Amino acid sequence: MTNEKSYAIIGLGRFGMPLAKKLAEAGKEVIGIDRDEDRVKELREYTEYAFVSQTLTKDVLEEVGVQNCDVVIVCIGERIEVSILTTLNVINLGVSKVIAKATNADQGEVLEKLGAQVVYPERDMALRLAKKILRENLVDYISIGKDIEIIEFEISKQMIGKSIIGMRVRENFGLNIIAIHHDGITDTDIDPHYLLKAGDTIAVIGKENKVAQFVDSYS
Amino acid sequence: MTNEKSYAIIGLGRFGMPLAKKLAEAGKEVIGIDRDEDRVKELREYTEYAFVSQTLTKDVLEEVGVQNCDVVIVCIGERIEVSILTTLNVINLGVSKVIAKATNADQGEVLEKLGAQVVYPERDMALRLAKKILRENLVDYISIGKDIEIIEFEISKQMIGKSIIGMRVRENFGLNIIAIHHDGITDTDIDPHYLLKAGDTIAVIGKENKVAQFVDSYS
Amino acid sequence: MTNEKSYAIIGLGRFGMPLAKKLAEAGKEVIGIDRDEDRVKELREYTEYAFVSQTLTKDVLEEVGVQNCDVVIVCIGERIEVSILTTLNVINLGVSKVIAKATNADQGEVLEKLGAQVVYPERDMALRLAKKILRENLVDYISIGKDIEIIEFEISKQMIGKSIIGMRVRENFGLNIIAIHHDGITDTDIDPHYLLKAGDTIAVIGKENKVAQFVDSYS
Amino acid sequence: MTNEKSYAIIGLGRFGMPLAKKLAEAGKEVIGIDRDEDRVKELREYTEYAFVSQTLTKDVLEEVGVQNCDVVIVCIGERIEVSILTTLNVINLGVSKVIAKATNADQGEVLEKLGAQVVYPERDMALRLAKKILRENLVDYISIGKDIEIIEFEISKQMIGKSIIGMRVRENFGLNIIAIHHDGITDTDIDPHYLLKAGDTIAVIGKENKVAQFVDSYS
Amino acid sequence: MTNEKSYAIIGLGRFGMPLAKKLAEAGKEVIGIDRDEDRVKELREYTEYAFVSQTLTKDVLEEVGVQNCDVVIVCIGERIEVSILTTLNVINLGVSKVIAKATNADQGEVLEKLGAQVVYPERDMALRLAKKILRENLVDYISIGKDIEIIEFEISKQMIGKSIIGMRVRENFGLNIIAIHHDGITDTDIDPHYLLKAGDTIAVIGKENKVAQFVDSYS
Amino acid sequence: MTNEKSYAIIGLGRFGMPLAKKLAEAGKEVIGIDRDEDRVKELREYTEYAFVSQTLTKDVLEEVGVQNCDVVIVCIGERIEVSILTTLNVINLGVSKVIAKATNADQGEVLEKLGAQVVYPERDMALRLAKKILRENLVDYISIGKDIEIIEFEISKQMIGKSIIGMRVRENFGLNIIAIHHDGITDTDIDPHYLLKAGDTIAVIGKENKVAQFVDSYS
Amino acid sequence: MTNEKSYAIIGLGRFGMPLAKKLAEAGKEVIGIDRDEDRVKELREYTEYAFVSQTLTKDVLEEVGVQNCDVVIVCIGERIEVSILTTLNVINLGVSKVIAKATNADQGEVLEKLGAQVVYPERDMALRLAKKILRENLVDYISIGKDIEIIEFEISKQMIGKSIIGMRVRENFGLNIIAIHHDGITDTDIDPHYLLKAGDTIAVIGKENKVAQFVDSYS
Amino acid sequence: MTNEKSYAIIGLGRFGMPLAKKLAEAGKEVIGIDRDEDRVKELREYTEYAFVSQTLTKDVLEEVGVQNCDVVIVCIGERIEVSILTTLNVINLGVSKVIAKATNADQGEVLEKLGAQVVYPERDMALRLAKKILRENLVDYISIGKDIEIIEFEISKQMIGKSIIGMRVRENFGLNIIAIHHDGITDTDIDPHYLLKAGDTIAVIGKENKVAQFVDSYS
Repeated sequence: MTNEKSYAIIGLGRFGMPLAKKLAEAGKEVIGIDRDEDRVKELREYTEYAFVSQTLTKDVLEEVGVQNCDVVIVCIGERIEVSILTTLNVINLGVSKVIAKATNADQGEVLEKLGAQVVYPERDMALRLAKKILRENLVDYISIGKDIEIIEFEISKQMIGKSIIGMRVRENFGLNIIAIHHDGITDTDIDPHYLLKAGDTIAVIGKENKVAQFVDSYS
Repeated sequence: MTNEKSYAIIGLGRFGMPLAKKLAEAGKEVIGIDRDEDRVKELREYTEYAFVSQTLTKDVLEEVGVQNCDVVIVCIGERIEVSILTTLNVINLGVSKVIAKATNADQGEVLEKLGAQVVYPERDMALRLAKKILRENLVDYISIGKDIEIIEFEISKQMIGKSIIGMRVRENFGLNIIAIHHDGITDTDIDPHYLLKAGDTIAVIGKENKVAQFVDSYS
Repeated sequence: MTNEKSYAIIGLGRFGMPLAKKLAEAGKEVIGIDRDEDRVKELREYTEYAFVSQTLTKDVLEEVGVQNCDVVIVCIGERIEVSILTTLNVINLGVSKVIAKATNADQGEVLEKLGAQVVYPERDMALRLAKKILRENLVDYISIGKDIEIIEFEISKQMIGKSIIGMRVRENFGLNIIAIHHDGITDTDIDPHYLLKAGDTIAVIGKENKVAQFVDSYS
Repeated sequence: MTNEKSYAIIGLGRFGMPLAKKLAEAGKEVIGIDRDEDRVKELREYTEYAFVSQTLTKDVLEEVGVQNCDVVIVCIGERIEVSILTTLNVINLGVSKVIAKATNADQGEVLEKLGAQVVYPERDMALRLAKKILRENLVDYISIGKDIEIIEFEISKQMIGKSIIGMRVRENFGLNIIAIHHDGITDTDIDPHYLLKAGDTIAVIGKENKVAQFVDSYS
Repeated sequence: MTNEKSYAIIGLGRFGMPLAKKLAEAGKEVIGIDRDEDRVKELREYTEYAFVSQTLTKDVLEEVGVQNCDVVIVCIGERIEVSILTTLNVINLGVSKVIAKATNADQGEVLEKLGAQVVYPERDMALRLAKKILRENLVDYISIGKDIEIIEFEISKQMIGKSIIGMRVRENFGLNIIAIHHDGITDTDIDPHYLLKAGDTIAVIGKENKVAQFVDSYS
Repeated sequence: MTNEKSYAIIGLGRFGMPLAKKLAEAGKEVIGIDRDEDRVKELREYTEYAFVSQTLTKDVLEEVGVQNCDVVIVCIGERIEVSILTTLNVINLGVSKVIAKATNADQGEVLEKLGAQVVYPERDMALRLAKKILRENLVDYISIGKDIEIIEFEISKQMIGKSIIGMRVRENFGLNIIAIHHDGITDTDIDPHYLLKAGDTIAVIGKENKVAQFVDSYS
Repeated sequence: MTNEKSYAIIGLGRFGMPLAKKLAEAGKEVIGIDRDEDRVKELREYTEYAFVSQTLTKDVLEEVGVQNCDVVIVCIGERIEVSILTTLNVINLGVSKVIAKATNADQGEVLEKLGAQVVYPERDMALRLAKKILRENLVDYISIGKDIEIIEFEISKQMIGKSIIGMRVRENFGLNIIAIHHDGITDTDIDPHYLLKAGDTIAVIGKENKVAQFVDSYS
Repeated sequence: MTNEKSYAIIGLGRFGMPLAKKLAEAGKEVIGIDRDEDRVKELREYTEYAFVSQTLTKDVLEEVGVQNCDVVIVCIGERIEVSILTTLNVINLGVSKVIAKATNADQGEVLEKLGAQVVYPERDMALRLAKKILRENLVDYISIGKDIEIIEFEISKQMIGKSIIGMRVRENFGLNIIAIHHDGITDTDIDPHYLLKAGDTIAVIGKENKVAQFVDSYS
């Protein structure tokens, strides 16, 4: 992975703006386009390639150099027609990787048929929030494959004062504890005799239902 | 954690709708309110407590039983005034945990001063996408504490045919490999002699910069 | 070709309405859908399967039986987003032949990528009118292949009183006269000694440039 | 017919724009007027006489020289009031041939009473499409007089391998075969022994019902 | 002149409403149509044939019986398109006398070409007011032919105490005094010795410029 | 009456514009104000004192010199609020004679209470039209006092060939014939033996009901 | 003063609503009218005579009994036209005391000319707030005549511990102390030896400039 | 109290404008901001620090110096969202005293939670008007504590000719007369033998119910 990649973000709204800023902060060359002058001005502090344009025709896109980008992300969610036609234009400019934000499944399907990768940020974030709400102490998680889950959670009252070894998570639930965050530091080499304190968080890996059983057994 | 908790979702848009459905699918009692009849009808297939209301006064909220919910999530992003006044009403009804979606930092600050927990789904999802775009093979990740990261990534061409033990990730980078996903299954008990194949994904844990060094050394 | 085919026309505007009526007049089973009640009422006099619907979701389309039609014509030109999403829905219902009206090339390209045949009625009609305006006495024409043309034209003043044989169109221009319309009847068995009268029209076939030369030589 | 004729196209929308371009491409002097700057700019590449104007008063029309044109085509369909008043203004400027686009019969009747020739592009194109849909293999057609038709159609499976003479179209249906398109060329001097191949198209002339009988007898 | 005539007023605004009421008060059969319910209710107190209708199609007009009226007055001024199409519909229903209100000369010309008599109430009233303003004491007037005028005016201070005979209007200006209005009565048999009092009005007939001279000579 | 009077017309719509032009044509000094630039430009050809202004505050009115006019006519009918506040401003500037156009009785009453003379052009013109419609051959008329009427009417078929003396209008109806318009001239010195011809118009004066009886006796 | 007076409040907005409630709470008979159903419902809990009406014609006002009220308050501020015409209607119904809210001086002047008493709540309240802001400890005040003022103010730090007699307000400033509010009670019979405590408020009467001098001398 | 305090008024509408002018007239340094140019121009005659701005971001507020003001009054009532976010911004700039206008209780509660003092000018003024309407001759009043009232009222007919001492207000009602306004002057040293005349006003202090009894006993 080299540093020379360049990116274009089309649409600098609530999704496109933080995306563009983050990529620019990572030192990448970033092109940003929006019809709103204030937003473009806001991005100008991160990249000199921020442009105002009311329309997103092929000519406009070509003029700002979209065709030379490695990845183009079309962040126009709600104006479905503009989202679709702009994605079409970007693909027709020969960009190899086009990611497009969709706000519903139909729009997503059209964008995919045109050849774009599709993301659904609001839906995905809603599902993440649902999971956090359902598992009260959950901090964050990732799922791997069909049934393996890594979750980080704040320990419950019932775990306070327990040692890692004493909870027998491997024996009883087939889980591995992979990190403990306490006192501002994160241990990945787990001390089995460490006694959990209020506010500590643990990361475990294992089968989804087993992780749930383990957490529930202490709540 | 028991099953008797109940939730209210106010605003069934792109964020509130999947959230409400997910919670209902998890067997929770869910109240949903929106001004759009079609959306409410859509949620009715998940919960009988889906209501249409053009206004969100205290009276309306009380009538549908919002005050009895354990958690209320106000998913009204763009109509900032309605978002703020509704959050105020919910808090004044005595709900102990109120989560409110914000679309910008100012709105978020007001909501917090009123006593709500605030989420920024589009901004958060943009940051996750930025990370995935920057690390090309990244599948998913979580950060723990200041500098520890768990990442799942698709192996690069250069890793194909390598054995786990041969990459010496612990020795060279201080990382632990915590899972390998291959052939449709996910191993959390790592076989050090397993030879990586195209399409496999690995999950590692360790310091953020070391994780980056390890990934870069094979790209 | 049998008579049992059925058709659905989605959008009963200036293009969809005469299309639906014509197909119904030909004895075909025709389904018509529009959001405007007056238009639907107008089509009801031609088919009992005329429906009002504000939305064109898959559910709506399925309810009226679009999935059972042999050909579906999506006549929604100007609301590009609706045109695209409806075409997608019709294709996803498994209809084998979907024709969609486009109002510009970009929209047409998206519709084609979704799998529809695309027609551009206003553009095509404009080109026909241009041809008629350019060749003043032209009544109608078709082009076959790259350069052969059949044209019907009103005879010019210079042709009045000429006999068919006397104009030597085959010898001088390589054309065939295939029909003469005079006195309310159309002869396809040409009498070579017929003398042309004001108001007669002739149909000739031949190379495009030769047809033009022939017409010009008498104007 | 000489080349010095000049034309004005008022309204450069989906109908007026391709019309204006086609006439300009044919080397004619073309004036184009529209209230949209982008469209006028688009036509500028075809003619220098393309003008932006928000209003279409007699003064405006006179200033751009509409009164000197041989033919003026008013392509303002949907703004009925503007269509009518502009047509009136053009006629009052003394233009001898005024063609106006209508979108419905009432508008058409008013335009005719003012003295314009009226065209209905969407309705006419819909009727053409209806005919093509009804006769599946139809490529194109013209009607001459009340009952004579020239049609070009793709041959059906049942015709493959048949010779022209063998189909006895003159004897059985009173039709003349006037052209065969095969292998990229179009023959108008028909070889009676030519054997039809898949993909060939034939043009025939004759009575409308006989043409239909002939086509049906092979389908 | 018999009493059986019937009238339809289409459009019950500031012009159509008093017209409809006046005709109804004169005992005529009056049909009134407007899209505003309140106005129709207002006219109901004058005629039972007052109808609300949002559209003015031929069907609607026929249903309320417009085709049976002797005179139809189309009082739709500002919605020019509706004014024109409705006038067309009324004429096509076979009504022999159609009067239509116009708000400008172009609209008036179209309405005339369709076959309507055209009135311009605001313009005409403005001209009457201009005349009254210019001749300060003018009460009312009519013009006959090119140059004869009948005017009624309030006498000026200079005329007070003058006798009719003493002003010598016939001898000096060639005018006839045809009426004197004084003390609440109007004399048409003029007493030549009547002495004019403040507040009296006189009606004179004669050449326009002579009338002006006479009035000016006493001001 | 001298020529030095000056006038201001506020609002140059369908009523104010012809009024302003007529007064200017009569050689008066006329100020015109409107918010529409095109209208002001149109009036500029009649007076140099035509001004565009979006607002009609006292400052604006004073700047253009309204306070120096002898008569100010406020021709703002439909924007009732603007009509009222502007009339107030004009009166407060000390203009002695303010005439204001009203579109309904309530508005008229307010304007009167503020001190303006009020005119109702559309209502008045409607009443004149009603009278003309009711008396078919009526050309024009004025009423004097309660019951005396001067009317000009086209003679009916039954009057053709009659002599003035023979109709005995004075004896039978108490009317005076005051003018006869025939052959392009208007006689005010009536020849009692003149024989009426088709197309002649007569002006008579007398009691309203007698005039009607006279006209009816010949229809 | 008897209890039988009745009141009508027209317009139940931010000004009219609390006014109507207050009068109803005082046991008066109150009529309330507004076009908004929710507001009318809100007032219904205070009076049964609360009505919804979209228009405020004389008929509507008469139907609800406005003409029988002793005082009518027209609380329609921003829709100036409606405010004026409604005030006119109320006055024409013969109501003896009509109070109307104005939002600017011009509107106020029109309302006064119609015969209403005019109030300017926002302007008046702004002036009260300005006074409170300028005199920091001011609680409330009234002005009597040109220069006498009664003010209530919170004592400043410098006054704490002072006795009333010791401040010599009569001798030094010509003021009378008329009330002291302390410990939850208000004394109007002033004890000259009372020692002021933090949080006490005093009411004094006297010349405006002397009051200011007195307050300033202790700040 | 010194003169150096400075104030910012955000929103120069019907409330903010007179407030800003009053403070400026008092010699204070006043900053005014509004999005309407005309209003800002109007305030410029009172202070040079009057600014137009379409937005009220922290940057804008800081640029005009809001953070240096002692008191900032946010006078944006109806655009609730803007009112809230602007108040937040002003508080975050560190201004110690922020007063914000609210139009309803919910808005007021949010503003208070953000840390502002809240005023409800229309509601407060309505309550004052209600009191004046209920006590017919009331000129002005203030309430002190729970039940003491100072009121100024015009004397009723029954009081005319009475002496102060003769009314025995202290003996019968426990009230003090604190001022008499007569003949254009205001006496605070009450002459007990003064005889009240029509038009005089008296100010009394005492218990609210006693004040009412006193007033009622003479009405």
